[in-house]
Amino acid sequence: MHNAVLHRRHFIIGAAGTAGAVATVGMAGPGSVALAQDAKPLPDYVAWKDADAVIVHSNNTLEMKRGQGGTSGITPADQLYIRNNVTAPGEEIVADPDAWSVSVEGVRNPRGMTVGELKKLGVDTVAAVLQCSGNGRAFFDHEASGTQWTVGAAGNVLWSGVPVRVVVEELGGLADGAKFMTGTGGETIPEGIDPKTVMVERSVPVEAMENAILAWEMNGAPVPLAHGGPLRLVIPGYFGVNNVKYIKTLAFTEQESDAKIQQSGYRVRPVGVKGAPDQPSMWEMGVKSWVTHPLMEAGTGRVQIHGVAFGGTNPVEKVEVSTDGGQSWQEARFIGPDLGRYAWRPFVLAAELAPGTHTIASRATDSQGNAQPEEFEPNERGYGHNGWRDHAVDVTVG
Amino acid sequence: MHNAVLHRRHFIIGAAGTAGAVATVGMAGPGSVALAQDAKPLPDYVAWKDADAVIVHSNNTLEMKRGQGGTSGITPADQLYIRNNVTAPGEEIVADPDAWSVSVEGVRNPRGMTVGELKKLGVDTVAAVLQCSGNGRAFFDHEASGTQWTVGAAGNVLWSGVPVRVVVEELGGLADGAKFMTGTGGETIPEGIDPKTVMVERSVPVEAMENAILAWEMNGAPVPLAHGGPLRLVIPGYFGVNNVKYIKTLAFTEQESDAKIQQSGYRVRPVGVKGAPDQPSMWEMGVKSWVTHPLMEAGTGRVQIHGVAFGGTNPVEKVEVSTDGGQSWQEARFIGPDLGRYAWRPFVLAAELAPGTHTIASRATDSQGNAQPEEFEPNERGYGHNGWRDHAVDVTVG
Repeated sequence: MHNAVLHRRHFIIGAAGTAGAVATVGMAGPGSVALAQDAKPLPDYVAWKDADAVIVHSNNTLEMKRGQGGTSGITPADQLYIRNNVTAPGEEIVADPDAWSVSVEGVRNPRGMTVGELKKLGVDTVAAVLQCSGNGRAFFDHEASGTQWTVGAAGNVLWSGVPVRVVVEELGGLADGAKFMTGTGGETIPEGIDPKTVMVERSVPVEAMENAILAWEMNGAPVPLAHGGPLRLVIPGYFGVNNVKYIKTLAFTEQESDAKIQQSGYRVRPVGVKGAPDQPSMWEMGVKSWVTHPLMEAGTGRVQIHGVAFGGTNPVEKVEVSTDGGQSWQEARFIGPDLGRYAWRPFVLAAELAPGTHTIASRATDSQGNAQPEEFEPNERGYGHNGWRDHAVDVTVG
Repeated sequence: MHNAVLHRRHFIIGAAGTAGAVATVGMAGPGSVALAQDAKPLPDYVAWKDADAVIVHSNNTLEMKRGQGGTSGITPADQLYIRNNVTAPGEEIVADPDAWSVSVEGVRNPRGMTVGELKKLGVDTVAAVLQCSGNGRAFFDHEASGTQWTVGAAGNVLWSGVPVRVVVEELGGLADGAKFMTGTGGETIPEGIDPKTVMVERSVPVEAMENAILAWEMNGAPVPLAHGGPLRLVIPGYFGVNNVKYIKTLAFTEQESDAKIQQSGYRVRPVGVKGAPDQPSMWEMGVKSWVTHPLMEAGTGRVQIHGVAFGGTNPVEKVEVSTDGGQSWQEARFIGPDLGRYAWRPFVLAAELAPGTHTIASRATDSQGNAQPEEFEPNERGYGHNGWRDHAVDVTVG
């Protein structure tokens, strides 16, 4: 099994443009075939992205290439991944961001509030990892359906907006019985389709509101349409799907949403089993890390191995690096400012590599002592992979 | 005098596109006239900048508009100011960044090193304010010559590269007698001109090397040509001019450079006095802050006053805000992650403003107890202004 996984991984790195020559061996499966085709052009609504930094999987799915993003700690907007469940609304909704209105429900004094009003209520800034539930899906052996992300459906972003708890306080506090915070996206649902089957409406435990913000700014600029502008619900520590774009309703509810994306979508279950409400939902993220350099080849002698590590809902405590496939480990050094518990941290370890092939792996541990597992249990849709072995890279030195 | 200053300031905010209607009253002086003209297009080498976020003063000087940059803490690359002393080299120098070579001199084993080699030596990341020496020049009454920057010749940037001390250690340590760190830029000097009169070669005290890096990355992407790529000397806490772009020589020297930019340029002296080597050089930055919102008008009721504050070479300790022109002050709250001692921090203070005109000021204090002065002594070239009164804004509420 291990060899199959390695082959699959190498193929994907190759397809990402790092070393195309290795990309054609030992491949099988629909995800791989799709990746082997020529690079797709950037869709119009994300024409401003850095075409060299991303892989266009489809109109609604763009992945940051492994090795992009550097060691600065923040992912540039033009490299950040895109994953839309429904086609994005038109650019007209970001023409006058302050005019966008969100309906706040499940509070004592429910009403609509424009972004302009929200900006007067309060402002805070949080750095948080944004990561698709399926990031790492390509590493599963069972070829889970969905975009074959390796590590690039994730980024570290500075979000700025009003804390949700400030909004709730302004509106008199939560209504009785509120157990979930439910966000509804502003996408247009095509006619003739039952809205519940495609709408983006996600519920998370109401406790998540303590750290959530309604964000109008991302990395120092208004949130672009492609990333959910004019207003996005940001829930630090939670998987991307819960960070509802173009949010039009924020409701505090007794029940989880009855939309398909909540009821059966984004549920962790064994391979072959259908999604159902009693299965775990893709809410809180776990501890994770991966190497971003080197990826395929390196010269002999000293090399600076670097990557990123984060704790999910807990702060990341440490990250170790192995250059021998996990037989021995050395603690790496975090570099740059600590951006807070929900952010990732770039790490670096200097190593001397002899000629030959080295399997370089990283393994992060959070503040509660949770470490990345070596292997990660397969699940039907390929969600939440944080096993360190599959995320390792084989680097040829010489 | 105070009224004249206010008029001048208002004119400039208006010219920046916030409220053009107020821009034509009570104006005089060459700087003001230049600003009153139509917006210039972006020069080719910075065509990727956000045209709506910047003021094009000239081909070599672009200013971020006051109010841009948001509350995230990091200045997006496409909003960051530009100030070149000499025309930038051609794009070809960033085509293969790793091939760029810097000659390291004044060490025991001097030699040239490529960026590719430097990347193997080590890597670190620092957030640092980049600020032109003349930022705030427009606020001086004596119409100092040079670009009439208000607050936008500054940004907060994540830099990543190799620490200079690691490079020095690799090359055997400093040569005897090194008192200065001298960087030379890679600009092409036009023929027929004495190079010493125009070259960018700056010396700083050798102690500055402890925190300096040779940076190949800015905000998560390779340093763009316009900002000094492929390799820029970054000296956290020092004014922009010392952060030499396209660095081709890094020398540890007994004397300061004999280039004009060092000998008589960037020297603080009384109005009317010529520059000379015995005057203070524009090295370390002081504590500073300014309000970024609101700027001209605000609705009645609650408003979130925000801005940025930094300590220069020391960490910023606190920032106070006044809504009555400095008669009373309230401590503002820093928001978002603390990016370290050389970074700026966004701050916010909620206020209720009655109808009328309010003079909103901010005053930062660093960890050593140094606070921004109310007035700032004029100097010939208009350098280093951090007086809080001139940086205040008059906001009309109602």
